Amino acid sequence: MIDLYTYATPNGWKASVMLEELAVPYQVRTVDLMAREQHTEAFTALNPNGRIPVIVDRDEDDFCVFESGAILIYLAEKHDVLLPRDHKRRSVVMQWLMFQMGGVGPMMGQANVFHRYFAEKIPSVISRYQNEAKRLLTVLDRRLATQEYLAGDYSIADIANWCWARSHEWSGVEILDLPHLQRWLAAIEQRPAAQRGVRVPFDISDVFGAGRQSASAETYARAGQTLFVP
Amino acid sequence: MIDLYTYATPNGWKASVMLEELAVPYQVRTVDLMAREQHTEAFTALNPNGRIPVIVDRDEDDFCVFESGAILIYLAEKHDVLLPRDHKRRSVVMQWLMFQMGGVGPMMGQANVFHRYFAEKIPSVISRYQNEAKRLLTVLDRRLATQEYLAGDYSIADIANWCWARSHEWSGVEILDLPHLQRWLAAIEQRPAAQRGVRVPFDISDVFGAGRQSASAETYARAGQTLFVP
Repeated sequence: MIDLYTYATPNGWKASVMLEELAVPYQVRTVDLMAREQHTEAFTALNPNGRIPVIVDRDEDDFCVFESGAILIYLAEKHDVLLPRDHKRRSVVMQWLMFQMGGVGPMMGQANVFHRYFAEKIPSVISRYQNEAKRLLTVLDRRLATQEYLAGDYSIADIANWCWARSHEWSGVEILDLPHLQRWLAAIEQRPAAQRGVRVPFDISDVFGAGRQSASAETYARAGQTLFVP
Repeated sequence: MIDLYTYATPNGWKASVMLEELAVPYQVRTVDLMAREQHTEAFTALNPNGRIPVIVDRDEDDFCVFESGAILIYLAEKHDVLLPRDHKRRSVVMQWLMFQMGGVGPMMGQANVFHRYFAEKIPSVISRYQNEAKRLLTVLDRRLATQEYLAGDYSIADIANWCWARSHEWSGVEILDLPHLQRWLAAIEQRPAAQRGVRVPFDISDVFGAGRQSASAETYARAGQTLFVP
C-alpha cells in the first residue's frame, strides 16, 4: 500500500495518474495548499522542500519519495513499466521527463503565477512566461509530428508532460496551431487511468478543462492570489 | 569518445564536471550562446529545445542526449558510478537531482534573468526569485547539516546542485547564514574533477567566483542583456 500526499495540481496529478496506470492500491492524503499545510512540520518531515506530491511506500519500511519526477522513476523501476530497461530507449524517456521537470513545469508554473496570482499585473513578465511556455509546447508539437508518444511507447515522459500541457488554458496559452500536441493530449485523455488520476484528490475539471474560462476558475484564482501577496 | 556541446553556464558545467569525474576522453564543442548558435538548425537537430548541454556518444552510434539531468543519468548508468543500483539509495539521488532540475536551477535562473539581464528592473519580481532561491538553498543547508553529501555518498545529485549553488552571488543571493552549504560547496570545490569541469569551455571564475563583483561580471551581464530585449 502507498500513501499519496497530494493536491489538485499538475505535479500532483503526475503521481496519481502513475498510480492509476499501475493499478496498485493507494491511499490519498490531501494536503490543503490553500491552508498552507505543506509548510507544517508534519509535512516537511516527509519533504523538506514543503511541496506536493510525496509518496510513502508502506511495503518498503515507509520509504518516502518526494519530487514528482523522482516518484515517476521510483514507481516505474519498482514495477518495471513505462520506463524501458534498454540503455538508449531509457535515456530518451529521461530526456523528455527532464524537459518537463526543468522546462515545461517551471515555465508554465511561472506563467500561472504572473497571469493568475501575482498581486501586480506586469505585462512584460506575463509575456515572458507565456511566450516561453508556448515555445516549449511547440517543441513538444514538433516531436509529436513524427512520434506517437514522446519517447517510443507511452511512458512516464508522456505522463509528466501531459499533466502540465493539458492545463495550457490556465497559463493563458493557446495551442490552436499545434495539431500534433492536440492529438496527443486527446489520446492520453482517453486513457481511463489518466481520467481517474486527474480527479485526485478532487475534480477541478471545470477550472483546468479545455475550453473553459468559468466562474469557478475565477474563484480558484482568487484563492491562489492570497498566497502571493508580497 | 564523447562530443560535449556546451557553454560556460551551471547547466553546462554539470556535464563537464561529470565527464571529468569519469575521466573519459571528450571533445568540447563550444556553442556560443551570445551569438545565438543554440538556435541554429545544426544545433536544434541535436536538441530540439535549443539548449546546452548536449552530448553525442560516438561509441554508441552517435547517440545524442540533451537535458543536463538526463546526461548525468545516462553517463552514471553507462559507467555504473555516482548513482547507486540499490532501489532506495538510487531514489534518494533521483529526488535531490529532481530538486535541482525543477527547483534550484529554474529559480536561480529566473533570479539571474531579472537581477542581471531583463531590460526592466522590477523589484517585486527580483525579490520573488531571490527569496525563492534563498529558500531552496536553505533546504540544502538543512539537509547538509546531517549529511556529508546530499544522498549518501558523493553522487550526481551533488554535481547538479553544486554547479548551481556555487553561482549564488551571480543570482544576488547571500549564503553567510548557511554554514553547512558553505562546507559542502568548499569540499566539492577541492575535487580536481570539479575544478577542471567548471573551466569548460573557458574560465569565467572572475565572474561567478565567490566574493567577486568585478568589472568582468558587469561586462558578462551586459552581453547577456542583449538577449533579453523585449
